[in-house]
Amino acid sequence: MTYGIGMVLNGGLVFASDSRTNAGLDHVSTFCKMTVVETPGQGVIVMLNSGNLATTQQVVSRIKQHAVDADKPLTAHASIFTVAELVGRELRKTILTTTNEAPEQGDVDFTATFLVGGQVKGEVPRLFMVYPQGNFIESTVDTPFFQIGESKYGKPILDRVIQPNISMTQAIKCALVSFDSTIKSNLSVGLPIDVAMIKTNDLQVTKRHRIDSEDIYFRDLRSSWSQGLRQVFGQLPDPDWLK
Amino acid sequence: MTYGIGMVLNGGLVFASDSRTNAGLDHVSTFCKMTVVETPGQGVIVMLNSGNLATTQQVVSRIKQHAVDADKPLTAHASIFTVAELVGRELRKTILTTTNEAPEQGDVDFTATFLVGGQVKGEVPRLFMVYPQGNFIESTVDTPFFQIGESKYGKPILDRVIQPNISMTQAIKCALVSFDSTIKSNLSVGLPIDVAMIKTNDLQVTKRHRIDSEDIYFRDLRSSWSQGLRQVFGQLPDPDWLK
Repeated sequence: MTYGIGMVLNGGLVFASDSRTNAGLDHVSTFCKMTVVETPGQGVIVMLNSGNLATTQQVVSRIKQHAVDADKPLTAHASIFTVAELVGRELRKTILTTTNEAPEQGDVDFTATFLVGGQVKGEVPRLFMVYPQGNFIESTVDTPFFQIGESKYGKPILDRVIQPNISMTQAIKCALVSFDSTIKSNLSVGLPIDVAMIKTNDLQVTKRHRIDSEDIYFRDLRSSWSQGLRQVFGQLPDPDWLK
Repeated sequence: MTYGIGMVLNGGLVFASDSRTNAGLDHVSTFCKMTVVETPGQGVIVMLNSGNLATTQQVVSRIKQHAVDADKPLTAHASIFTVAELVGRELRKTILTTTNEAPEQGDVDFTATFLVGGQVKGEVPRLFMVYPQGNFIESTVDTPFFQIGESKYGKPILDRVIQPNISMTQAIKCALVSFDSTIKSNLSVGLPIDVAMIKTNDLQVTKRHRIDSEDIYFRDLRSSWSQGLRQVFGQLPDPDWLK
């Protein structure tokens, strides 16, 4: 499985994704699931993917090839919306082609989901979730984050904390806590975690960081969070009906 | 959907389940998903169910009828293991019969899952998870809790807190926090919550309580937890790579 988060906040965009790919528990590999395309001053686009690895790699390659063929970078699109459209078309096409060419593999899931976000010059930062069917939805102030992959374990803390007006630092910390919960409860999501932060109008990745198992900050964060939770839990009132 | 938790601890058994049943969002009803059979001094059995409501109601009715036919209560079984076997057999039979009798309903999911736990005289408290296939697994000291239904949102806190040696009060509070996270993130799980606690060797339900939307304690617990989480979150260190 995979776990990926994208957020669009007043301050800009935050992305985080894990790197574990598995086809059964004895076939676990590390693949970066975050693709960044940037032309500083012109625009920056981040894609996170979950689902069938062959499908997602093919889609990413095709989109890159598309830019080469058209002889203009992906960031030259006038809107992130048209990039999401492009991803949707390629995704749908790849899934259909693979499924039709291998009808005997009826029980293999070739589907995938993408988060596509970023900012191009002249437009505000935007974030889309692209479904295997090729259609997509856009993040709004009411729904400032999207998740892909193994999303349920880490959703409660995002629901509590993420609002458009929180700081980028708070948002990144919240994403990491969400990853902590997911990693604790699900073996198939694992380190390293790729984090990217894009401040509004920077038109390039402001900060990119990879958190691996040696990362001292993430270890501190996990233990502070765990201790804090236990402390809060220990202070909860007892039910009167148990007295 | 449904959410249900069963735990077997040193002090005894704890069960909690929600009461929301839905077939689409406009067809939401309240049904108790906790069935208690007790013969004080002889034994007590608790069943929680998730899945197709027609299936689970049929299984519960059949098991009760089984006891009437055999002219001995369910608690007269020498072991909770044989009760789990009985539930597995009836569950498998019900699903097969319904599916075979309505082949045109191929896209309807008639499956269900049960938690079966309790204590009969002469045996320790035991807890089983019975699958739609009719087979089952038993809870151990390494895995002191089982969840059914919409289990992922509320799993992280259980993973952190539930150990066989925690008190029954702590266990019940943890179950309620787990419900809080689930209710916050998933519309299809809702109040009231049924809670049952069975102390080891009590051979009857020690405490049973229903938490509805008017429950002041649960409201306090939710707000204390929420405030506490925010406070802990606010005190987390900032990443050095963001400074």
